[in-house]
Amino acid sequence: MKTMEELFHALLQDVYYAEKQLTKALPKMAKEADNEELKKAFTTHLKETEGHVERLEKAFEMIGKPAKGKTCDAILGIIAEGKEVIEEVDDDQILDAGLIAAGQAAEHYEIARYGTLCAWAKLIGKPQVARLLHETLDEEKHADKLLNEIAERAVNRQAA
Amino acid sequence: MKTMEELFHALLQDVYYAEKQLTKALPKMAKEADNEELKKAFTTHLKETEGHVERLEKAFEMIGKPAKGKTCDAILGIIAEGKEVIEEVDDDQILDAGLIAAGQAAEHYEIARYGTLCAWAKLIGKPQVARLLHETLDEEKHADKLLNEIAERAVNRQAA
Repeated sequence: MKTMEELFHALLQDVYYAEKQLTKALPKMAKEADNEELKKAFTTHLKETEGHVERLEKAFEMIGKPAKGKTCDAILGIIAEGKEVIEEVDDDQILDAGLIAAGQAAEHYEIARYGTLCAWAKLIGKPQVARLLHETLDEEKHADKLLNEIAERAVNRQAA
Repeated sequence: MKTMEELFHALLQDVYYAEKQLTKALPKMAKEADNEELKKAFTTHLKETEGHVERLEKAFEMIGKPAKGKTCDAILGIIAEGKEVIEEVDDDQILDAGLIAAGQAAEHYEIARYGTLCAWAKLIGKPQVARLLHETLDEEKHADKLLNEIAERAVNRQAA
């Protein structure tokens, strides 16, 4: 890679792959969640994630490239750790705490990546792509904050 | 795992492994960085990271467990993506942008994990452990912000 356009394109492919993986992981997390609010948060975020995939497809179109993913080792690792928690934890409420932590690790990965994509999109003269992806960035931040709130409530309830 | 104590201990092992991996990755990132400010940021963060390892060792002691890591697939994935950038990018200034992105992905993983560790430490009745790990959380957030600032300056300079 020799240009910012190529670097941007490569990261777009990475994030596209990551979002698609998350559309497969989130239904499992929703299914495993015991707390109703948490279950709903994962289900809502699945719908949002499907929207993120569509925005990325629009972004590919706006830079004149086909929408295509590229294996993202980071998200595979994050999802693998989430699966490990599901397999290893026996108690429902402890599992909820673990699921929230796994969800927040995924959110933070995306917050980092969309932050970078927005900065790079502006840099390569694609402010409309930056604006589009910023909508997703805001939703990821909101999802992280919501998980935090549920953690405080659910985890405190359980500890009491 | 059946208790929050066990879940906390498992995550502590994950983060301990992650920090140790980062002490190996950061010198390579500092070496590859072209921008002097970025090189210095990675070198400074390496020293901080060594401090994070020591804090984790203190945390293990405070919960009466031996300091021991547990493979963290997420950080391995994040580091692998950073290595890919180093291998695939030819231009020095484009590589700097890629290194900053890789660094921020690692920072955000840690921000998520330390946020969770602090919440869980309080929950299991270890407020002193929470305070200790909060110092690291603050340093990770600061490192992420610094990379952001360097990105704005360096990347803009290069684009101009």
